[in-house]
Amino acid sequence: MTDYTPPQKDMAFLLNDVIGLGGIPAAADLDAETIDAILGEAGKLARDVLAPLNHTGDQVGNVLKDGVLTTPPGFRDAYKHYAEGGWNAVPFDPDFGGQGLPWVVAFPVMEMWQAANMSFGLCPLLNQGAVEAIHSHGSDELKAAYLEKLISGEWTGTMNLTEPQAGSDLSAITTRAVKQADGSYKITGQKIFITYGEHDWADNIIHLVLARTPDAPEGVKGISLFIVPKFILDENGNPGARNDVKCVGIEHKLGIHASPTCTMQYGDAGGAVGYLVGAENEGLKYMFTMMNNARLCVGLQGVAVADRATQAAIDYAKGRVQGRALSGAGDRVAIIHHPDVVRMILSMKAQVEAGRAMAYEAARALDLAHAGDKAAQARVDFLTPIVKSWCTDMAVRVTSIGVQIHGGMGFIEETGAAQYYRDARILPIYEGTNGIQAADLAFRKILRDGGAAAQAWMDDMDGVCTRLDAANQNGLKDLGAALKSNVVALRTATTALVQSGANDPDRVGAIDAPFLHAFGTVSGAAMMARRALAAQNDTVDAAFRATQMDMATFYFTHILPEADAALKVVSHGADVVTGFDIARL
Amino acid sequence: MTDYTPPQKDMAFLLNDVIGLGGIPAAADLDAETIDAILGEAGKLARDVLAPLNHTGDQVGNVLKDGVLTTPPGFRDAYKHYAEGGWNAVPFDPDFGGQGLPWVVAFPVMEMWQAANMSFGLCPLLNQGAVEAIHSHGSDELKAAYLEKLISGEWTGTMNLTEPQAGSDLSAITTRAVKQADGSYKITGQKIFITYGEHDWADNIIHLVLARTPDAPEGVKGISLFIVPKFILDENGNPGARNDVKCVGIEHKLGIHASPTCTMQYGDAGGAVGYLVGAENEGLKYMFTMMNNARLCVGLQGVAVADRATQAAIDYAKGRVQGRALSGAGDRVAIIHHPDVVRMILSMKAQVEAGRAMAYEAARALDLAHAGDKAAQARVDFLTPIVKSWCTDMAVRVTSIGVQIHGGMGFIEETGAAQYYRDARILPIYEGTNGIQAADLAFRKILRDGGAAAQAWMDDMDGVCTRLDAANQNGLKDLGAALKSNVVALRTATTALVQSGANDPDRVGAIDAPFLHAFGTVSGAAMMARRALAAQNDTVDAAFRATQMDMATFYFTHILPEADAALKVVSHGADVVTGFDIARL
Repeated sequence: MTDYTPPQKDMAFLLNDVIGLGGIPAAADLDAETIDAILGEAGKLARDVLAPLNHTGDQVGNVLKDGVLTTPPGFRDAYKHYAEGGWNAVPFDPDFGGQGLPWVVAFPVMEMWQAANMSFGLCPLLNQGAVEAIHSHGSDELKAAYLEKLISGEWTGTMNLTEPQAGSDLSAITTRAVKQADGSYKITGQKIFITYGEHDWADNIIHLVLARTPDAPEGVKGISLFIVPKFILDENGNPGARNDVKCVGIEHKLGIHASPTCTMQYGDAGGAVGYLVGAENEGLKYMFTMMNNARLCVGLQGVAVADRATQAAIDYAKGRVQGRALSGAGDRVAIIHHPDVVRMILSMKAQVEAGRAMAYEAARALDLAHAGDKAAQARVDFLTPIVKSWCTDMAVRVTSIGVQIHGGMGFIEETGAAQYYRDARILPIYEGTNGIQAADLAFRKILRDGGAAAQAWMDDMDGVCTRLDAANQNGLKDLGAALKSNVVALRTATTALVQSGANDPDRVGAIDAPFLHAFGTVSGAAMMARRALAAQNDTVDAAFRATQMDMATFYFTHILPEADAALKVVSHGADVVTGFDIARL
Repeated sequence: MTDYTPPQKDMAFLLNDVIGLGGIPAAADLDAETIDAILGEAGKLARDVLAPLNHTGDQVGNVLKDGVLTTPPGFRDAYKHYAEGGWNAVPFDPDFGGQGLPWVVAFPVMEMWQAANMSFGLCPLLNQGAVEAIHSHGSDELKAAYLEKLISGEWTGTMNLTEPQAGSDLSAITTRAVKQADGSYKITGQKIFITYGEHDWADNIIHLVLARTPDAPEGVKGISLFIVPKFILDENGNPGARNDVKCVGIEHKLGIHASPTCTMQYGDAGGAVGYLVGAENEGLKYMFTMMNNARLCVGLQGVAVADRATQAAIDYAKGRVQGRALSGAGDRVAIIHHPDVVRMILSMKAQVEAGRAMAYEAARALDLAHAGDKAAQARVDFLTPIVKSWCTDMAVRVTSIGVQIHGGMGFIEETGAAQYYRDARILPIYEGTNGIQAADLAFRKILRDGGAAAQAWMDDMDGVCTRLDAANQNGLKDLGAALKSNVVALRTATTALVQSGANDPDRVGAIDAPFLHAFGTVSGAAMMARRALAAQNDTVDAAFRATQMDMATFYFTHILPEADAALKVVSHGADVVTGFDIARL
């Protein structure tokens, strides 16, 4: 098992030099030293407390017996450590005990939890969505009752969306909520795939549950959002009577074994007590408050697990002696000396670095949007499906390369490479499958605004091209020319989508996934170029400057060609899909 | 769990109409009806006996206790059924009880075992290598003693190559073999990752072991091959005294849980009795006899598990109702009606069909080579690394799409989608990692003969272009033009490799993997075009004809663009890899 080394230097470089914190009110008081201090402390917790539990958590998993769920050894204590350190409160409203740090700082912190131990990190990730939903849409009474403890980490929050017949399609939800005389609701139904629906870390679990009132309109317009606490609060606001909700099963999964995936049964004894968040029938809108946040964070999980896999692969490649150098008959060498292994490692590293930069860029837009910047809101809306999909597809590819670099040992569970590969596989699925993300990008984020947000992002990429072209270095100028031609191709594809898309949604659906892949791949190139540009200002560390330039060059020569291939699919690949007679399958 | 439906029609179409059996002596007596009968019977065994054990085998795995290995329930009986049916003997020499069928027929039969139950299929796959090695290089005495029972399946054979310090690099082998007065050898050492090194299916296990005599030259020139039976044969040729070899551990793996991966200890009690195969120090050459066969079969495993995953995904997509059609507000539909899902399914199916055709094409070359055709030997040598790598990388991609189509259920082990994904991940690793294959292709199969075998294969692809261009159908003509431009690009890349490669092996090593990927992807396109051409002759089944044309069109528009992207990496991607200072990692 390889240790986790938090990539603090890269994180600080992105925040301070590549992306920048300018214009973010919550970052006004943050200087580079403070950021270093935060990242350093988070890094210690991630490295020393969470990372060592990752493998045992995977091997031991959770045990559910008589409704009581026991998490793997060490997790409960680690959570206490994490909550007591104030880490759960990082991005939240100081009025409720939060630390009020900007998302662009919360993201690298969150990345460390996810890289160290993705199963652990899922609880805070989901909790974050619950906090956001209550904070944005809950009454003052609900906020007063729940927010402080969800922010401190004394309690944890969950998202209860999925039902057996309602996964990607939430219109099919059947869980019922019947209003009672006291204004509360009785909730009845079953939810599946509920992450940390039950556990032994906290005194209460606050479920955010999508359900339908008896007279609600059909489909997504009739969904409401409820708070259903595991323990109903007593008159002092403390956990009191057990609510009528229980975990009746946990899933046997491919990965994230230490994260309990629960089947939650509501109302077996007459109905669980729930409290309406906001107004009836507005639940889907509120759900997206939770979901959008979570989607970006899932993209970040992709970056995190891919980084962990990359670190493990580099470590293994340095230590594993096998074969001789191609260009000589010298001694046997560590496999990191073989060019094909170097290629694989650089491929992992370049994709992680591109993804990390994209995710943080989206977090910056989120901060600006929270401060009221409408263009920034459009930006984060636009980038969300790209970050979610591209970074998670990337995580599957990168963790697979990680297994490959380990050779036969990669297939043996003891090395951990296989765990990253298994854990990563959930990422393109949950919080909206990547197919859903591709449709979201094409239909909601591009067709609805006529491509305005997309064009604005491409304008920014053109700005990067201009800076590259103006640079006093041929390598950067070359990147500029390559990026430019890719942005031109993206614009052509986007314009074609806008012109024809509304009339033929099936054709859009047939190519929206490769369209998203092209957008993500070119966006990653722009971020890698921005890294290389920013590194030129580092006059101290020549090796760092050279590495940033090499990584950008690697990305442009090895990864960026995929964008062109994907755009060929976009141009020529729709007809054969829409024309195929599925009766022949 | 989805049933396995053997793709008998596609297999017969490939054998009879696309690839053809002309010129293969062993196929002289085979007509289409006989082939159908063989495939039909094999299909029944695969579907009814082996496939139902796949999931339980994965879940239960093997148990090793006090040196005794117990395989999962049902496997032992299934093997008996398989061996008694004569299936183990399919491709082997009738002089030793084999059925003497050509490899091109044995391949679809083998594909069925692997698709039904890859863990089961590994035992016959490895046994095949053992039979080939003894048949090609063993003395008459060894042949007489071992071949018949290894062919009937009464005994099974293994390949003992890997040691902890000697994986891809067999030069580092340290297992010792000391000659005894009676001509036998005492074998001492440890082998790891030995597939079916121990099990409870057969009366004897015949290990083929690479080891080093005391006075052997260093490196690969000092390796010899030995037969080490689990039970030493008595004077009647029956299993007698227990040999000094035992299984001391089995691995905890990502996949193929039902296939025992054993650590074998030789000589704890003074030395296991072994018998030299062929001459001393010629072991590596003999090993390649086993290995080349196994490499093609591993490519075939990739086709098999990818096909199984595709069948499961189609089945799930037909049954899973979720969402409404993009182009209307009608009822909820099965997800197979969503264009993005159709795209994913066609991507799986197209890659499986291309891989299957490539693997069978290689098998045909193998048959012609066995009949003494030297060009065919060069062809199979050339295609082996391509089939091994391309089909196994494809299997990882395709089984991943299979998980994705299942959505959240794909991550739950009960559906089986996750098992295919886990099982497939070994394929790019064992029998020579895909990195080793890429080096084999570039250095041994192209640079050594100046690209002659590669050019011959591209000449054949040009012939396909000519046939496509001559076809009386615009769709086929379009495929011809696209294939032509890709072959031209491949020729350019091959010529560049030949011209510069010998002088700069590091630069070749930096791009040999994308080079192989491009070759495989274009070769797959040629095979898909040949399918479409052959289907034109089917005047009866219009749907089949249309499907072949659609699948070729899909491959050309969705998969083939990867070749161009890979060739860009080949052209521009070497310098950044060879120039990267690995001390910075």
